[in-house]
Amino acid sequence: TRSIDLAVVAGDGIGTEVVEQGLAVLEAAVAGSDVKVTTTEFDLGARRWHATGETLTDADLESVRRHDAILLGAIGDPSVPSGVLERGLLLKLRFSLDHYVNLRPAKLYDGVTSPLAAPGDVDFVVVREGTEGPYVGNGGALRIGTPHEIATEVSVNTAFGVERVVRDAFARAQARPRKHLTLVHKHNVLVHAGHLWRRTVEAVNAEFPDVTTDYLHVDAATIFLTTNPSRFDVIVTDNLFGDILTDQAAAITGGIGLAASANINPDRTAPSMFEPVHGSAPDIAGQGKADPTATVLSVSLLLEHLGLTDESKRVEAAVAADLAERSSLPPGGRVRTTAEVGRELAARVAG
Amino acid sequence: TRSIDLAVVAGDGIGTEVVEQGLAVLEAAVAGSDVKVTTTEFDLGARRWHATGETLTDADLESVRRHDAILLGAIGDPSVPSGVLERGLLLKLRFSLDHYVNLRPAKLYDGVTSPLAAPGDVDFVVVREGTEGPYVGNGGALRIGTPHEIATEVSVNTAFGVERVVRDAFARAQARPRKHLTLVHKHNVLVHAGHLWRRTVEAVNAEFPDVTTDYLHVDAATIFLTTNPSRFDVIVTDNLFGDILTDQAAAITGGIGLAASANINPDRTAPSMFEPVHGSAPDIAGQGKADPTATVLSVSLLLEHLGLTDESKRVEAAVAADLAERSSLPPGGRVRTTAEVGRELAARVAG
Ligand SMILES: CC(C)[C@H](C(=O)O)[C@@H](O)C(=O)O
Ligand SMILES: CC(C)[C@H](C(=O)O)[C@@H](O)C(=O)O
Repeated sequence: TRSIDLAVVAGDGIGTEVVEQGLAVLEAAVAGSDVKVTTTEFDLGARRWHATGETLTDADLESVRRHDAILLGAIGDPSVPSGVLERGLLLKLRFSLDHYVNLRPAKLYDGVTSPLAAPGDVDFVVVREGTEGPYVGNGGALRIGTPHEIATEVSVNTAFGVERVVRDAFARAQARPRKHLTLVHKHNVLVHAGHLWRRTVEAVNAEFPDVTTDYLHVDAATIFLTTNPSRFDVIVTDNLFGDILTDQAAAITGGIGLAASANINPDRTAPSMFEPVHGSAPDIAGQGKADPTATVLSVSLLLEHLGLTDESKRVEAAVAADLAERSSLPPGGRVRTTAEVGRELAARVAG
Repeated sequence: TRSIDLAVVAGDGIGTEVVEQGLAVLEAAVAGSDVKVTTTEFDLGARRWHATGETLTDADLESVRRHDAILLGAIGDPSVPSGVLERGLLLKLRFSLDHYVNLRPAKLYDGVTSPLAAPGDVDFVVVREGTEGPYVGNGGALRIGTPHEIATEVSVNTAFGVERVVRDAFARAQARPRKHLTLVHKHNVLVHAGHLWRRTVEAVNAEFPDVTTDYLHVDAATIFLTTNPSRFDVIVTDNLFGDILTDQAAAITGGIGLAASANINPDRTAPSMFEPVHGSAPDIAGQGKADPTATVLSVSLLLEHLGLTDESKRVEAAVAADLAERSSLPPGGRVRTTAEVGRELAARVAG
């Protein structure tokens, strides 16, 4: 038997509800195989911070590190000052565990209605850099609260950091039928960072000669995501542009209720982390209204990362079948609860 | 007679073609009134740079300054290294002339097809800060071209700079029926800059108590621009987020062929600049294919800025009528040239 030690960070808001269903589907996916999943729950997020003032201690981090992977629900609550949990917990996990590939697939599944009138065949992945850019926390403020306040935010980009994520993106593009990579940046304005990204894509392309590339400024990318999203195959971009584009990508493919993500450490020096793109949605928390599909698709990415390819495919197929069936239900019909969706997905996975 | 001294920077690519039509419509708008427009053409852009190595000299800038307003076509050409003309000419104009309000209306005119299936009634303006943020050119690179390269980009935000643009945005919101202002930023990650923006909006709100406000992270804003753009009235945001959101806003309201912008110096210490949001589009330059509508709508903003409100409204009405009529033409019919569209708009304005 192979044992998978999973760190579970349910977190805030709807995090608990969706993670519960994600775990149920994960169980169903490995049931009957020689894979055994053991979970350790981590009490992290708003509750813990209110109780102890802690976000993620060194001890937490060391303990998380000893797992094979992390399943995360959602982080963030209006009762906590903005940035405290995002920077002190979510981004601290991504940065400390060197999740330099923030992978976000955007696929318009059959039966899902896009808000675009003519979306076409949308199936691309965004490889968002996860450990650099404007997310490094390298800014500050002077004379806060006075008319002379100045606040800065520094985007840090290194050849080391850009090259490794660009190489990962090329490898992903090469493994896909279309073999196309689009770099998104803003090199006509952010000339230093932008030119580093551009030169890196050109250089690494030599190692992947069968991958075609193009370039879009981030503003133009939002246009194409609206008018012709099927043009994209793999997008590689920095941490902030990736944040923006992946929410837009989620919107055109049916909403963040369906958008999965993987924070990957490709060198496997620390566990990778799998999380739905949606946040904690405090307005609907605890009501069984959240759609666990994004978490379940994140579980599919988790299984793939752990080499359980068949199980991963079965989970994705279950979601695809469920989404296709949703569209055939009469409109205005009964809305399923979080647990019901989870149960039905688990049943499909169990076959 | 009132004389308007207009600096004309046709620039690169389709810039020349669309500016010619913009000027024709401007002439038509003031014809028969006591307003006389005189124009000075500035040879700026790719041609000048290739010939002289100059982008915008001190002498150019001093000369531009002596005008009442600037009409700009487009800047940028693939033959010039990325950033040279953008930073050295376009952004230099915006920064030197203190265009701190970069105003970009997003309106879905009757007869225009949105790529969104159910766009609703879209009519908002983005007040994009124009003189700070990641656009300040405050970055650099070390060990360029080596594996140890590090490139930084610094976003600079000051209380002075944020407050003046936020106040302008509140005033614009107050003058509109819905009186609603949305701040877009990313204060959960860019905590220093984000909190400055947030505190400033809260503080300035006291001067405009009848304006309601809300806040969206930039990633969430791209979702709402896709799923519910009619929720927006006035958006205020920083230079880079504004760049991104206004291209998306243009896309959902019929494309950048229709998107106008005004780079405004509200203190009138220097001329404001009016330009279509689209770029130089070198692929279609010189072929009479460019749609001059965005430039003509920019002329409408120019007239409004100069206090010629009736003329401004007539120009916008002409565009609205033209767009409404386009939709009633049989599909696949003859496509009008740049000059034909300009001529018909001028004729409508002349009445
Ligand atoms: C919550 C926030 C810090 C986070 C991010 O900006 O990365 C989120 O928007 C995401 O995309 O995962
Ligand atoms: C050409 C470029 C420098 C410019 C910008 O980024 O501001 C353009 O995209 C715009 O929006 O006017």
